[in-house]
Parts: sequence; C-alpha cells; structure tokens
Amino acid sequence: MKEDSKSNIPTSVIKRLPKYRRHLKNFLGELDKISSSELSKCTGFSSSQIRQDLSRFGNFGHKGYGYDVQSLYDEISEILGIRTRYNLIIIGAGNLGQALFYYYNDKEDFINVLGLFDVNPKIVGLKMKGKEVYDIDYLTEFLANNSVDLVALCVPRRAVLEIYKSLSVSNIKGIWNFAYVDLPEHDKINVKNVHLSDSLLTLAYRIKNIE
Amino acid sequence: MKEDSKSNIPTSVIKRLPKYRRHLKNFLGELDKISSSELSKCTGFSSSQIRQDLSRFGNFGHKGYGYDVQSLYDEISEILGIRTRYNLIIIGAGNLGQALFYYYNDKEDFINVLGLFDVNPKIVGLKMKGKEVYDIDYLTEFLANNSVDLVALCVPRRAVLEIYKSLSVSNIKGIWNFAYVDLPEHDKINVKNVHLSDSLLTLAYRIKNIE
Repeated sequence: MKEDSKSNIPTSVIKRLPKYRRHLKNFLGELDKISSSELSKCTGFSSSQIRQDLSRFGNFGHKGYGYDVQSLYDEISEILGIRTRYNLIIIGAGNLGQALFYYYNDKEDFINVLGLFDVNPKIVGLKMKGKEVYDIDYLTEFLANNSVDLVALCVPRRAVLEIYKSLSVSNIKGIWNFAYVDLPEHDKINVKNVHLSDSLLTLAYRIKNIE
Repeated sequence: MKEDSKSNIPTSVIKRLPKYRRHLKNFLGELDKISSSELSKCTGFSSSQIRQDLSRFGNFGHKGYGYDVQSLYDEISEILGIRTRYNLIIIGAGNLGQALFYYYNDKEDFINVLGLFDVNPKIVGLKMKGKEVYDIDYLTEFLANNSVDLVALCVPRRAVLEIYKSLSVSNIKGIWNFAYVDLPEHDKINVKNVHLSDSLLTLAYRIKNIE
C-alpha cells in the first residue's frame, strides 16, 4: 500500500479504527475469519460503513468470505502506528497516574513505560513493578538523556504550565493530557486532551433532557 | 427560556458547552464581563462561533459590552443540567475508581458521591473521606434503597456483564463507562463511554503520521 493513501484517511475513519481493533483483538486466536455483518453486530457500525472503511486499506475482504481476523488486526495496528513501541513517561503518580501505569505497563504491548514523576516525597523513589517514581526536578535531565515519545500528564492544573515548559523544548512527540486545562499549540507535539469532566457534563445534559 | 428551544440544541453545540463553562469558571470572581474575543482566545473557538452558540440560549451579550461571566456560567450550568446534584456511585474502587472519587467528591458540586463498590476484601468496608467501600454483592439492594442517578463503571472487562444485569433493571439514568467494552443499548439509561485506549491510539496515529 502506498503511504499516500494512508495519510489521506479522514479523521472520522481513524477514530473508528481503535474500536475495530479492540473487537478484533477479542477474536484473535478464536476466529480465523469475520464478516462485515459480524463486525457490525459487535461494533455497532453498519456493515456498509465497515466495508467502506476497510476498503481504504487494501483488499482484505472477499465477498461471502469475510475478513481475515489476524491480518486485519495487524494492518489496523500498523496504520495506527502501534506495531512499533512508544516510550511513555507518566507525570503525576497519584491515583490516576497509577491507574494508567498499572494498565499500560502490563496490557498494551505498544506502550513501554519508562517511569513516573511526582513532587510528593512520600512516593518519589518508590518502585512500581520495577519502574521508578522520579522527582519532578529530574524531568528536564531525564528528557535530555532518554528517548521519550509520549507523556501522560496527570497533574493538577496549577502544575501544568511549569511542566509544559520542560516538555515544549524536549523531543517528545505527544502529550496525553488529563489535566483539566488546554495546552498551547505546538508545531512538533501532538496533544490529545482527555477532559473527563467534559464527558461527565455531556452525560448530565443527556440525562436531564430525556427525563 | 422555553424548554423547547433548549432541547433542540445540536449535539455539536452541547459538546462545546463544558469547555465554555470550564473557562468561565476560571474567571468567576475575577472578571465581571467577558467579550467573545476574550472567550475565543482561551477556548480556541472563533468569536463568531461563540456568538452563534451563545445566542441560542437567550440574549446574554451586548455589542461592545461582552457577556456577564456569572450569568453565562449559571445559564450554561443550567442547560447542562448541573445546577441540580446527581447522586453517583463508583463501581470498582481500584486506582481509577479512587482517582474519580477523590476528584469528584471534592471538586465538582454537581456530583454527590454516595459510595464505592468493589470485590476486593482488602478494601471492602474501608471508608474514604467518610464514604464507604461496599461489597459488590450489596449492589442490587443498594440500588433498590437509594436514589442513584449515575454510575461510574471502573471494573475489568470480565466483570462488566454481571454488573450490568443489576444496573439495567435499576432506576439509574446514566453510566459513565470506563470499562473497555461497549454496553448494550438501553432505552432508559444513557451511556457515555470513556475508552482511554482509543484516545491513546488516536494520538499514536497522529504521531506516526507527522514524522
């Protein structure tokens, strides 16, 4: 497949890929082939939507035959860029930072957690499953000496700007931002905001309006 | 304002309201008035977008004068349905459940956490800031005897379906789902999925494609 065709995939399609991958993952080793109507049942997308989405990536399916589960899973992983591993650090090792650590340290093989950072002297220096909690003062030096791709930012709002100064001059490529603040735009660093309260507010709105 | 006009607000507008509210909250007590261009600077939405969005909710702004920060904040809160309080329980009191608990128990006045539920005998019976961690076996009885509006679901995938059986026959109105699985549709329960891995995958995709 040409690189060209991949980079032109619309965002709306890209957003559906993780869901396809998640469901395909459940079938790995259990099922060789899957039809678009079976994928439709578990993902909730229509069969025609699925066929259209997947046709962008090459000729996976054959009419009346279905998709090869393993190949499709691998290809989607390839497109999403997760057949390579990303080095992640977690800044803020409170409950949320630890939740992300214990999940991603074990369960997602495209993530390699290098360590955690915090200001709290009670947890700085601790090891979690062999990974150290470093003092935040060591962040700039750590970024200079290690190949860090991604940062999960799990600190209170007041701490964000100071940390962002260090991040913005480093070689990191992405910030997964859980702090409830919008980060400045940066020409080399991608930011994905996870504003949990915004999603809770959206839910509250929906509840109020179905009563 | 008529209820009619509110319920016809497009989803795209509703999704921007939490962001307006978040930025307005920062200005409460510090600023009386704010212009659409100032709101544009901090939210990243265009001034004309903002004026168009806010004009749906009544006549807040006056040309050359700006919006009244407190009134606009109150009205957006009202539209989002968060001037009333919602009773929340958190199912799964691991790191993520605790992170949500410590945040929402203190910082968002539209949420009233009634308690947490878990299977782990080491934490069942503990109290966190006066709120109890109940045994999951007590869930159905608790739902029958308490007015629970919202459930934050923070359990491993394998535990979801069993818990969903209890939730689906209760009077709850919404599930804030952090489990990495899609829940069945339900005519009375709204579901808001927060699939953290999907957002991480989207970030990975973007990083790979800007290199």
